Amino acid sequence: MRDFSQDHRWLSINTATVRKQRGADWPLLQILDACAARGIRAVAPWRDQVAAAGLQATAQRLKTHGLELSGYCRGGMFTYTDAASRQATRDDNRRALDEACTLGAPCLVLVVGGLPGALGGKAAHRDIAGAREQVTEGIAALLDDARARRMPLAIEPLHPMYAADRACINTLEQALDVCDVLDAQRSGALGVAIDVYHLWWDPKLQEQIARAGPGPAGQRSRLLALHVCDWLTPTTDLLNDRGMMGDGVIDIARIRGWVEAQGYRGYSEVEIFSAAHWWQQEGGVVLDTCIERHRRCV
Amino acid sequence: MRDFSQDHRWLSINTATVRKQRGADWPLLQILDACAARGIRAVAPWRDQVAAAGLQATAQRLKTHGLELSGYCRGGMFTYTDAASRQATRDDNRRALDEACTLGAPCLVLVVGGLPGALGGKAAHRDIAGAREQVTEGIAALLDDARARRMPLAIEPLHPMYAADRACINTLEQALDVCDVLDAQRSGALGVAIDVYHLWWDPKLQEQIARAGPGPAGQRSRLLALHVCDWLTPTTDLLNDRGMMGDGVIDIARIRGWVEAQGYRGYSEVEIFSAAHWWQQEGGVVLDTCIERHRRCV
Repeated sequence: MRDFSQDHRWLSINTATVRKQRGADWPLLQILDACAARGIRAVAPWRDQVAAAGLQATAQRLKTHGLELSGYCRGGMFTYTDAASRQATRDDNRRALDEACTLGAPCLVLVVGGLPGALGGKAAHRDIAGAREQVTEGIAALLDDARARRMPLAIEPLHPMYAADRACINTLEQALDVCDVLDAQRSGALGVAIDVYHLWWDPKLQEQIARAGPGPAGQRSRLLALHVCDWLTPTTDLLNDRGMMGDGVIDIARIRGWVEAQGYRGYSEVEIFSAAHWWQQEGGVVLDTCIERHRRCV
Repeated sequence: MRDFSQDHRWLSINTATVRKQRGADWPLLQILDACAARGIRAVAPWRDQVAAAGLQATAQRLKTHGLELSGYCRGGMFTYTDAASRQATRDDNRRALDEACTLGAPCLVLVVGGLPGALGGKAAHRDIAGAREQVTEGIAALLDDARARRMPLAIEPLHPMYAADRACINTLEQALDVCDVLDAQRSGALGVAIDVYHLWWDPKLQEQIARAGPGPAGQRSRLLALHVCDWLTPTTDLLNDRGMMGDGVIDIARIRGWVEAQGYRGYSEVEIFSAAHWWQQEGGVVLDTCIERHRRCV
């Protein structure tokens, strides 16, 4: 297992972590400047932040700083109620793939969607099994587009508390089942993003991380990304109360050890949504804290 | 599958559902009176409510009304940091068993505990695997006491969002694994409580419910209780924002169908924690709503 205590070479900042400072939007290009100034080598930007900054301007700034991406957030939201919304989602996901290519991302992260309409407060139906079928179908279609662009897709299983409204893929086992169906040959085009916040509780996590690894035959690993933050007790909001590494109950280093045991040597990407705390701080202070905690708690 | 649309014979009220009315505690004996007045045949009382009303007074009132129990809430909280707290928990669980016997409960429901200290906001450690070992050990010890009293234990897997602070058994598969270790012979002394709120999201739920059933050899089923309520979108509080059946996204009838396909013929127990809504209403109105929704949405 790599020693992270001496430097922050393998730290990446998901830009949602600092999307606000002192409660107001922090523009993406300024975030990139602040990361580069601290020797942070990688980021994972969100599409809405890229759109606000401009795709080409973002690509140029990344290049200027020599910043890599650890992933691009995000595609997905595959569930639909009619042919028009299905097509609109597919078109939008193709644009996300193109953006990921422009930015040089190693993968497009997929948040697959829940019951259609639930995110707006009114689910169109209660058929989660049907939603899951739509997700598999949607990933299958996008996989053709992704292969054509040589852009890997990383399915991110979300915590079961988001099953209704954000993602009906909720365990690593389930995500890997989908991978096995759609990419049995382990081509490298389809894999998973491991987010400790979503998966830390799972009694089968170690076993399933091993399943995602290359295996004895030396196939391609499905482990495309590692996201870190922490689970606070109490957690006061289902979406925007994630903790800084070390402030909660997740044994992050243990999980990273499982991932690295499968050969993962990529970035450890900090992704924190924290409306009441971190988004109220100075952005530079948050980045400095990420660096310190990455060394000590990841 | 039984037809619930014509009457409420198989409705049970978990007394947490009406623990408050208009924001103030509703005494348990009054709750029992209100249930009996509506032809409700069963309840599942909480220990703190029984303690406040008096154990003997509660037993007497149940008898007066001919009310059955669908379960007794709750034992568990097995995780510990020292020998003294471990012993105190075991003693307390023995008392819970005795109370369950006095009240004529069909089972003692177990909420197994999370990381020690986490419920108070400060977890003693981050070793969830270790906590799970303590839980298995605690259930094993209590099982001896339970067998001596002929009082079945029902492990209730809680939603993964409670893994840190309330219960580190979070899927039905995991609960059944514990059952298989501790009661391989399926004696009937150990089983599970299925709560749709905790388990609805699980892609393996149908399969694991079938596993809990009697099987082709006709062994004892592990399905000891069925709890119902609903998952709201959005959910605004991790603990006390459960919905009334029909107000959320859970296909309750589908899950009940899976449970009944395994021979379950017990009560459907309504357990709703709702600080902002139902606990602010008149208790009788809540009970009437439970009756109506039980017929229409369960």
